[in-house]
Amino acid sequence: MDFKFIDGTITTTQGFTGAAICGGIKEGSDKKDIMMVKSEVPCSAAAVYTKNLVQSDAIKVTKAHLADGKAQAIIANSGNANTCNANGYETADRVSKLCASVLGIKDEDVIVASTGVIGVPMPLLPFEKNLFLMKRLMSIDNGYDCAEAIMTTDTIRKDVAAKMTIDGKIVTIGGIAKGSGMIHINMGTMLAFITTDVAISPEMLRESLNEAVEDSLNMVSVDGDTSTNDTLAVLANGLAGNKEITTKNDDYKEFTQGLTEALKSLAKQIAKDGEGATKLLIANVSGAKTKADARKIAKTVVGSSLVKTAMFGSDANWGRILCAIGYSGAEVDVTKVKLTFESVNGTLLVCENGAGVGFDEDVAKSVLSAETIIIKIELGDGEDYADAYGCDLTYDYVKINGDYRT
Amino acid sequence: MDFKFIDGTITTTQGFTGAAICGGIKEGSDKKDIMMVKSEVPCSAAAVYTKNLVQSDAIKVTKAHLADGKAQAIIANSGNANTCNANGYETADRVSKLCASVLGIKDEDVIVASTGVIGVPMPLLPFEKNLFLMKRLMSIDNGYDCAEAIMTTDTIRKDVAAKMTIDGKIVTIGGIAKGSGMIHINMGTMLAFITTDVAISPEMLRESLNEAVEDSLNMVSVDGDTSTNDTLAVLANGLAGNKEITTKNDDYKEFTQGLTEALKSLAKQIAKDGEGATKLLIANVSGAKTKADARKIAKTVVGSSLVKTAMFGSDANWGRILCAIGYSGAEVDVTKVKLTFESVNGTLLVCENGAGVGFDEDVAKSVLSAETIIIKIELGDGEDYADAYGCDLTYDYVKINGDYRT
Repeated sequence: MDFKFIDGTITTTQGFTGAAICGGIKEGSDKKDIMMVKSEVPCSAAAVYTKNLVQSDAIKVTKAHLADGKAQAIIANSGNANTCNANGYETADRVSKLCASVLGIKDEDVIVASTGVIGVPMPLLPFEKNLFLMKRLMSIDNGYDCAEAIMTTDTIRKDVAAKMTIDGKIVTIGGIAKGSGMIHINMGTMLAFITTDVAISPEMLRESLNEAVEDSLNMVSVDGDTSTNDTLAVLANGLAGNKEITTKNDDYKEFTQGLTEALKSLAKQIAKDGEGATKLLIANVSGAKTKADARKIAKTVVGSSLVKTAMFGSDANWGRILCAIGYSGAEVDVTKVKLTFESVNGTLLVCENGAGVGFDEDVAKSVLSAETIIIKIELGDGEDYADAYGCDLTYDYVKINGDYRT
Repeated sequence: MDFKFIDGTITTTQGFTGAAICGGIKEGSDKKDIMMVKSEVPCSAAAVYTKNLVQSDAIKVTKAHLADGKAQAIIANSGNANTCNANGYETADRVSKLCASVLGIKDEDVIVASTGVIGVPMPLLPFEKNLFLMKRLMSIDNGYDCAEAIMTTDTIRKDVAAKMTIDGKIVTIGGIAKGSGMIHINMGTMLAFITTDVAISPEMLRESLNEAVEDSLNMVSVDGDTSTNDTLAVLANGLAGNKEITTKNDDYKEFTQGLTEALKSLAKQIAKDGEGATKLLIANVSGAKTKADARKIAKTVVGSSLVKTAMFGSDANWGRILCAIGYSGAEVDVTKVKLTFESVNGTLLVCENGAGVGFDEDVAKSVLSAETIIIKIELGDGEDYADAYGCDLTYDYVKINGDYRT
């Protein structure tokens, strides 16, 4: 696959423009909090959502709009989740209709998403006041601002862009995401929006997204809490001019592989910027009996509070990793497990055949002091493998979440 | 039931003596780390263990010894988990045999348990050096010392004692536990030992223990990590003189209820002393469709990192509770949920019919500043209920676990 990451963001894909503004949704805040992205032509569209039974009303509106597999614009806000509010559906519907009318597109071609505090009624005024201005600002230069507008406790913006060849044409994938807290497996994000110019049918786009999310955003854990607002949406406007993908042919496979890589990039960015995090943890499991076992183990290890705090302290407390493997629910012969820590500072073998091997504590501190730590788990039990993405658990996680609301 | 808590501990039960000593299992440590408890006569015995696939070798030895439902003594240590060590089984077996020989009881009548760091070979010398001395120290006055000897990062000792009447006889239940970190549902403890003088068959004791643990120690979560060493064992020596319980009659039910209360007391003590904890959280779920749903919701709420940090900050961020209910996996109609915070400082209704109701932030701070906070969750969906026990997530949890090993 001639897939290549490039500098860029959600508006790097041809035919897409965006705008972002500070609408003051959270009173007194001066950060950008509303963003719109539009394609110049209608798109195939697909999305996946949180599995939480408590869902933002924005999700309910978006689900209805995507029933036909078509969309043309995204409107999203931070500062308020529009969840658990008495009039939440009306608000989300009104925001969506306002966006459609301002942009001159069909009501049902809008994807709407919100992120922020739960249970506080969301004001409409910031949208009513700003959407006409935002329409005039729409440009290919505003993609990074759009990424900023959906940040909450994120400390860095999350963008991705890549180019690949499909059917002899250059296809672009662009995207943004926000993550940080309330991040767990099964949609390990709060919001992510992807644009692409590939020509693909709504059905195939949906299938491709479902495949791509499994090994990427579904393998991220920050704190074990599954958000009420997670939404990952993809818009494909077809302007690349490839023969439309309508079956699971080679073009489909190439595109899906590219989409997976793009989502993996966002997954790592989200994990690394987990609330209070100082380190990206990658659990790299191989030799599993089944894919499901590999995923279970990888997810459980990056989700363990004790593993996360040990990594924060650069403490090679590998017993906690073996412990997490043991309670992951995967079928595993613990007497075969081999554990290695890897980072830019070196490699450290700590456990073989399920029992500890001696190691130098100074080397351990050095290996674990890096910003990205790979926890390599070799099960010796089969052929399957999986990666999961997480972060360390720090004082700042407690600080950020001890008083988020007030 | 005429059940009554009394001051006391594991040796408050007639016929039981104990001793504890500082054996220096963890080099340089000056805390008590080995304890023995013995009954003057052989006992019916039962135990439940961690469900982690990675298990301490102590558990393997104990399981073999309890196959016949009989035991007479317990030997336990802190400072080393004797888990994931190449010669772990031999070590546990040797410790157990040494105990039997010193106390003059059968090899297979010893319960052995360990807690502490994983993956570091456990020295035998501290046992070989001290067990004969400990035998001479055995007394009914040493129960509290035994509780101290199994503490690791625990900050307070955990004991329980109670009296009740069964078949016209006074029956005593005594016990100790250690908890703190690596505590999660399905044996929410690391070690707990119960003594009682009730006369009961091994089969009925096993059944009774399995019932009692469901609503008590299986409903505790500190950090979501399931330990490799969890062991809860009960010894019943029959000296109370009641007619031996051999079927599920009224005496069985009374005893099981009493055992449940005793274990609940230990569960609360463990949750309140969770690593770094400043508050005990009790999720009190009612109106659930099924018992399983009630338990799932209660456990998920006290296990949520975001709920735990909010409680640490005395922040009435109830949206996170609703969110946790939503991803608990229980079947629930979120539009019926009512949430109330309760403490010695008052009561605060925050959510009705799944949506927020206005409240005074000052009252909220006051209610949530107490040491014990009840999160009352009324589902309005049925008749079933459950409590779960947890604690807040604090800076000190991160501090304690960022560098536990070194």
